[in-house]
Amino acid sequence: MTTARVQIVLVTGAGSGFGRATAIELARAGHVVYASMRHDDLEGHSKERWASLRSVASEERLDLRPLELDVQEDASCRAAVDRIVADEGRLDVAMNNAAMMMHGLTEAFRPEQVLQILDLNAVSWLRVNRAVLPVMRRANKGLLVYTGSGINCFPDPFTGPYAASKAAGDVLAEVIAFETARYGIETVIVQPGAYTSGTDHFKHAVGPLDSEAARQYGKLEGLSDQLTHRLDGANLSGRRHDIGKVAEAIRDIIAMAPGTRPKRIEIDPRGRDVGKINDLTAQLQRDFFGRMGMADLLEPTVSG
Amino acid sequence: MTTARVQIVLVTGAGSGFGRATAIELARAGHVVYASMRHDDLEGHSKERWASLRSVASEERLDLRPLELDVQEDASCRAAVDRIVADEGRLDVAMNNAAMMMHGLTEAFRPEQVLQILDLNAVSWLRVNRAVLPVMRRANKGLLVYTGSGINCFPDPFTGPYAASKAAGDVLAEVIAFETARYGIETVIVQPGAYTSGTDHFKHAVGPLDSEAARQYGKLEGLSDQLTHRLDGANLSGRRHDIGKVAEAIRDIIAMAPGTRPKRIEIDPRGRDVGKINDLTAQLQRDFFGRMGMADLLEPTVSG
Repeated sequence: MTTARVQIVLVTGAGSGFGRATAIELARAGHVVYASMRHDDLEGHSKERWASLRSVASEERLDLRPLELDVQEDASCRAAVDRIVADEGRLDVAMNNAAMMMHGLTEAFRPEQVLQILDLNAVSWLRVNRAVLPVMRRANKGLLVYTGSGINCFPDPFTGPYAASKAAGDVLAEVIAFETARYGIETVIVQPGAYTSGTDHFKHAVGPLDSEAARQYGKLEGLSDQLTHRLDGANLSGRRHDIGKVAEAIRDIIAMAPGTRPKRIEIDPRGRDVGKINDLTAQLQRDFFGRMGMADLLEPTVSG
Repeated sequence: MTTARVQIVLVTGAGSGFGRATAIELARAGHVVYASMRHDDLEGHSKERWASLRSVASEERLDLRPLELDVQEDASCRAAVDRIVADEGRLDVAMNNAAMMMHGLTEAFRPEQVLQILDLNAVSWLRVNRAVLPVMRRANKGLLVYTGSGINCFPDPFTGPYAASKAAGDVLAEVIAFETARYGIETVIVQPGAYTSGTDHFKHAVGPLDSEAARQYGKLEGLSDQLTHRLDGANLSGRRHDIGKVAEAIRDIIAMAPGTRPKRIEIDPRGRDVGKINDLTAQLQRDFFGRMGMADLLEPTVSG
């Protein structure tokens, strides 16, 4: 069974990467898509982001709506959701996607840098949800989609702050899923592989500020390049590896009937097999939640 | 093969719980233990913490040394490590343990609260390590012990910010392990079960500040008490469940020869079986690291 109904969708970080691709794909599927991004991406120093999305929308006659939303500001999250509810009276799908990348030796990152990525990549999910969830809880339905990562299952060298942020976000998303299941709210965590192209992630990756510490790691010299090279190789020899696959997967998930969607989907997991970890974890979780008398929290309670 | 050599050990958060128990146990085993805590625990409003530890030390004639260390302050971490190196010329073992607990509905926590626990429970591990690692890298040896948690593998309802912080810390610890392995530095992440007694964790758990959001969760009423009750029941029917087991496990790990210690130990995992997830993850990790040509990062390079 699939739902053909037009969905009102909010996408954060829609100015580039997975967010942009998904916003376009969902609009093509006929949904009303609020493509949210920071002020700078709409009309500031990176305004070409919205300009480019707008030209796709106008060319293909898509219902893609620009929306200012800074996931690091509570008031901005609330204002954005208020605007959607004022326009449409509801919000069906929220995709928490905005993120940044950091890459480098963990010891050389200053603690403030790690807090910055934890805020942007993980705490922002709570911030956006605190605006979205009251609307969905009142409706007794809704879909939360997250751009997670396979990396948090077992991280690579040089990914410390980034992988930590994705792991923290994953846990917050998972616990919010339990706590909102009885309100009919469904959660899907998308876990893409390492996309070294198609997103701005690697291009805009922030490095560690403490160059003195980094210089002391002579024994790791060349390792970062070696790893990137081999990851690229593994990607190229693998399945089709473009961000469109992520967008299509999310489109298909939205088309599924509420209550039937997978909690997690790995996309292009080649090289990591996080699906096996997800399966084992889900099985242990079912056992544990059953014994604790709260198995119902593992799936949304779908009202008729 | 075991090492009988006296180790110079730093324990953070030694004023209570696992930190206190481990500091005592290691001192009993003959090690020199710097029992570090915040100023308040030494001579401020909670000075009974150090007073109580001091009386154990004096009664049993243990080499337990008080050390002021606030894991949320860079300068404090550096000063503490400088002091140890000035005294002893080396630092063999650092136990990252200081932590706080939060408990409640995720949506009702303010983002600042989540940042606070992420800083104290996860970023602090980097902060302490940034002081400790230069010393250990120069020595080409050292042992990092972390008080992790089984909860980050699959969290419970009401544990959002806490479980997110433990997951983030776990990833940082794991990546730092890879990046320091060639410097002979070994990492052990201890994953205790849910200790509802013996630590100050639950007693001092911080709740969500947004009571308005919490009030809107009528459908979860009674669930938190039900869960605590069942967890207590599972604990009581299980194996000996006191924090001494954690301290003894760390004592035994320190006694093992460098390079032979387990990367992770679960203690009292009853109810969760995180060991199975650890085993599967370790196996996938060996495959992946092998293919990436960096299998040597999975174990410390022990110099002769």
